[in-house]
Parts: sequence; C-alpha cells; structure tokens
Amino acid sequence: MHLFYTPDIEPSHPQYFLSEEESKHAVRVLRLNVGDKVQLIDGRGGLYTAEIKDAHPKRTILQITDVVTGFNKRNHYLHIAIAPTKNIERLEWFLEKATEIGIDEISLIICQRSERKEAKVDRLNKIITSAIKQSLKAYHPILNEPEPLSKLLSRSFDGQKFIAHCEESDKSNLKQDISLNGKYLILIGPEGDFSPKEIEDALHNDFKAITLGQSRLRTETAALEACFEVNFLNRE
Amino acid sequence: MHLFYTPDIEPSHPQYFLSEEESKHAVRVLRLNVGDKVQLIDGRGGLYTAEIKDAHPKRTILQITDVVTGFNKRNHYLHIAIAPTKNIERLEWFLEKATEIGIDEISLIICQRSERKEAKVDRLNKIITSAIKQSLKAYHPILNEPEPLSKLLSRSFDGQKFIAHCEESDKSNLKQDISLNGKYLILIGPEGDFSPKEIEDALHNDFKAITLGQSRLRTETAALEACFEVNFLNRE
Repeated sequence: MHLFYTPDIEPSHPQYFLSEEESKHAVRVLRLNVGDKVQLIDGRGGLYTAEIKDAHPKRTILQITDVVTGFNKRNHYLHIAIAPTKNIERLEWFLEKATEIGIDEISLIICQRSERKEAKVDRLNKIITSAIKQSLKAYHPILNEPEPLSKLLSRSFDGQKFIAHCEESDKSNLKQDISLNGKYLILIGPEGDFSPKEIEDALHNDFKAITLGQSRLRTETAALEACFEVNFLNRE
Repeated sequence: MHLFYTPDIEPSHPQYFLSEEESKHAVRVLRLNVGDKVQLIDGRGGLYTAEIKDAHPKRTILQITDVVTGFNKRNHYLHIAIAPTKNIERLEWFLEKATEIGIDEISLIICQRSERKEAKVDRLNKIITSAIKQSLKAYHPILNEPEPLSKLLSRSFDGQKFIAHCEESDKSNLKQDISLNGKYLILIGPEGDFSPKEIEDALHNDFKAITLGQSRLRTETAALEACFEVNFLNRE
C-alpha cells in the first residue's frame, strides 16, 4: 500500500486532501484511483489508512478509514549530536540508517576540528522523511540546525549524557551505564575527534565518556554504532 | 604514520620492497624520505612497523623494525551471506561499514528475487582494502564470488547458521541463540526478501530463523545490524 507523509493531518480528521504535488504524484505517477487504499503517517506517531474518494490530480480527496496513534512507539528517547562529516554523503547515510534503526532527535554540532561548518537541514530532512516512509515509521526524527558544541553543552538535558571520544582515558560503555527505557544524549565528534578542551568541557557538563568498542570507526560509523547499541540494549 | 596493505609480506622478512605503484605513491605523493616510519598490514593479522631505507620512486626499500602477529585478533568468526543490492552503492556501503565494525567473510548470494545477478568482486575488494587501512585492521575480510543461494546452502559450515527473513513465522534472535566466541553464518536476503521456498530450503539445511528487531530494514541495513549484533554480543 502506498504511503504518504502528511504532517498536517490530525487523528480527528475524517477526510484529508493531498497537496497539489502529492495529488499529482498519486494520480499521474502512481495511477491511483477511486477506491484505492493508501497509508498516511503524520510524523507524530499517527498511522492512518485511507481510501481515495476523488482521484483529482490537484486535490485528491481521501476518506480516513482507520487511525492508529502511537504506532510502534519506542520505549526510549535517543538524541545523537554529531559533527557533520567533511563528505556530506556520510552524514546523509547516517541519517537514513539511524532513522531505519530508530532515533528521535539529531543535533549537528560544529566542533573545533570540524572541517565542515554548515549543513543544509532542509535537504537532510528530506532524507529522513524518505527513510521513515521506506521503513514505515510513524515518528519523524527531529533534526536541529547546526550549532557550536559549546551551545549544546550549556543546554540542560533531562536524561543520560554521554560523549564518545577517542582520547586515551577512563571510559565506560553503554552496556554498563545505560538505564533502560530512558532518555539519552550522545556526542559524536568530527574526523580528528573532539579537542581535549571540548572533552573537558563535556565532562564538566556531566557527560560521561564512553567507548564504542576497540575498532577505529569513522564519524558516521561511530554514530550509527551508538544508535545500534542504544536500540539493541532497549529491545524487549 | 602512513599505512600500506602488503599481502605478500611474511613476518620473517627483514626487508620489504614497495611495489612500483606504492613506491611512487610513497615518494611522489606522500613525499616520504629515508628514515620515515610507515606501517604495513598483511591482511592475515600481521602489523609491521618499518623504516624507509631507500626512498626510490619505483622500488622503495623498507627495513622492518617491528612485527606484531595476530593484531587485534577477533574472538569469533563472522560470515555474512548477502544478496547484492540493486543499487550497488548500498552493498559497497555495507562492506565498508562491516569491515570497520568487524567481519571475517562475505558471500554474495543470488536469490530468486534478486534484481542484481552479478557484482564485480575486484572493485568491491578495493573498498574492503581501503576500509581495513582506514580502520587499522590487520585481517582482510574474505569476499567470495557471487553464487546461487542453493550452492551456499548445500555447502557444509562448521558453526551456527542463521537466516534473517521477513516472513511471519516463529523466530529467535541472536541475543538468545548465539554461542559466544563461535563461528556464525548469517543469510541476508534481497530487496523483496527470500522466497518461501528459499526459506524452507534454508531451514532444512539447519539454518535457524532469526529476527533483527521490529524495524523494517533495507537489505544492507539488516546485514549491518546482524554484523553489529554479533560483534556487540561477543565484546568482552
């Protein structure tokens, strides 16, 4: 069944009008007709089943036949803050994969050793949206605008805070330290790692240093490893 | 320190001559000189430290100063058999990431629903080689030529055998079933999954059906999830 991402729908709506672009896609490209069934996700946990009432190429009318709220609601909240990679495709891969595996929020942090200081959030959000459609996720992960690491560190966060850095030091790991069904914020540094000063600042702000294993991982692989670990440890 | 992949070196060798291509790269591109130190990996667990004796642009001579065998030898053996993805970049991405995280052998299986029936192993091997250099792995994962699933199923394998498919059925998971420090062969199907017949054949050949969690994962994401789970569960 074809799936549309329709963030403006509410569970109370009996009907929904596809946008001009989506209507054109539904009628001209997918050749959907009156009576055909489609699915809608609102990005806030709502999964809707709908039937086409009017296959209008500019204003397709859908009759909502079923609504599930809190669809596949996850039992924890994962927020990963990652330094955008020099090659933006690597960050894009991470966003697609993390969305498939399970993530709630992504922050883009600019660090001392970041080679890339900016990232186009609109474009990156499109990748997340197509990933939730592909993997049938009713929750749309939040992607925040890039900001300096210092700003993120100073903000309060209600949950466990971790920093995955490569410096030699006493480190714990998620298996030991994670409180299940919790909220987690995990920092992943740029190619070349966080600077000693940044690590110190994070520790002063109650971030706990963790290792993601013995392998030397690229930035986007480390972020995905953290995402895997949190989801795996919280899996029932 | 710069790293070279030199599969023809032996731990007993006191000296090593870089190939014409590597010599040119070392001298002309990296501008390495007499006395500079480099590292070599043989792909069989050997990590060598060497010093440049003659920075010859066609035949650079290295003096081996230190050898470590069984460098970061892993405590298990992971063999993943994956159906090459329609978009080959997705398979390439899996190979790079799995090499970073930890894998020993990859088989490419052609299934009933495979949209891609071939893959260029030479090109894919180059991706694995650059990944072992990037992540400092002394063992080079083995990549096998594509073959029909039926051929792989008929071959004997000394270890645990799993199939990750999406059909509704009784399934276990790796957390429950894995015997630590063992040998594992895990089958990952194409876009569109294994056919019921293929699943049946696998079960008859003593493969155990497993789930990789509730998320609907792409082929390459499922393969990486399996790779992650095996490594995570075996981590000391």
